[in-house]
Amino acid sequence: MALYGASIEYILHSLLWLVDNPEPVSSLDLAELQEIPAAFVAKLLPKLEKAGLLAASEGLKGGYRLARPAEEITVLTVVDAVEGQKSLFNCQEIRSRCALFDQRPPEWATQGVCGIHGVMLRAEQAMRQELAETTLADLARSVRNKAPAPFFGEAQSWFDERIQTRRTHKVRQRRRSGNS
Amino acid sequence: MALYGASIEYILHSLLWLVDNPEPVSSLDLAELQEIPAAFVAKLLPKLEKAGLLAASEGLKGGYRLARPAEEITVLTVVDAVEGQKSLFNCQEIRSRCALFDQRPPEWATQGVCGIHGVMLRAEQAMRQELAETTLADLARSVRNKAPAPFFGEAQSWFDERIQTRRTHKVRQRRRSGNS
Repeated sequence: MALYGASIEYILHSLLWLVDNPEPVSSLDLAELQEIPAAFVAKLLPKLEKAGLLAASEGLKGGYRLARPAEEITVLTVVDAVEGQKSLFNCQEIRSRCALFDQRPPEWATQGVCGIHGVMLRAEQAMRQELAETTLADLARSVRNKAPAPFFGEAQSWFDERIQTRRTHKVRQRRRSGNS
Repeated sequence: MALYGASIEYILHSLLWLVDNPEPVSSLDLAELQEIPAAFVAKLLPKLEKAGLLAASEGLKGGYRLARPAEEITVLTVVDAVEGQKSLFNCQEIRSRCALFDQRPPEWATQGVCGIHGVMLRAEQAMRQELAETTLADLARSVRNKAPAPFFGEAQSWFDERIQTRRTHKVRQRRRSGNS
């Protein structure tokens, strides 16, 4: 098992669609555009709202938009908001459990951080440092540099059409319930 | 879940007992000295033997010893030998699954490494770099600096006694089967 799995991949890709997007986007639209599980995305986005990275709005045109500029949202912030601050290493302090200690570890044995835990903490710190150095804006820029210009227009039309379809559907529903 | 759990903790602590130890140590003795599950240790040590970090010997005085100087065994080598090269991030390439692509992702969409995967790979590299910078000799030195000098003599006596007990037990068994 990797430390970061599908949740992180889904959420980072979803956020990229919100960079430079003037309108809120629904979690269902994000899921369907990317062909990823809708229930999964619907469960993850509120975590980011809670962490102050997303703002949510209600209604037919409602959905999520970034609550901060993309330059201020690092990959680390997103990862921590979704997963909590995950540890690289699960230390059970076995250094205190030596048969020679006779159930009572002496003070020197448990003083400070265990050397093995210490190496792992340094590795975790180096990893987190790297995740903190890339922002959503950086990631979005690299996608924009790869994709042909018309692609983002097409994506925008796709989102607009989805909102339009919802509105038409709602109007029909109202008419129908008015006639009944 | 952390990336590295009990296996790594058990194995790194076990290896520390082999640094500067002139005699081979059995996996059962390592487990019982540290009060950790014997079956777990017995399953892990052969992985390190296969990776060329440990040498195994048979017989009453048999067991494991380091196959290389402790200065040449890094935490990263141990971690990789036990866990395989674990990834930080499990990339499912969802960038290729966009509804706009109509089942056939264009070349630009899947070219090179995905930007999100790229950040994760850099973080993984930074983490591995840190794990490669500490050796078993460094870890053993930090334990030696903390423990009072008599402790290592006591530990050595404990191991010697265990070997002695096994030998006496074996002689008794032989005498018994000779009398029967």
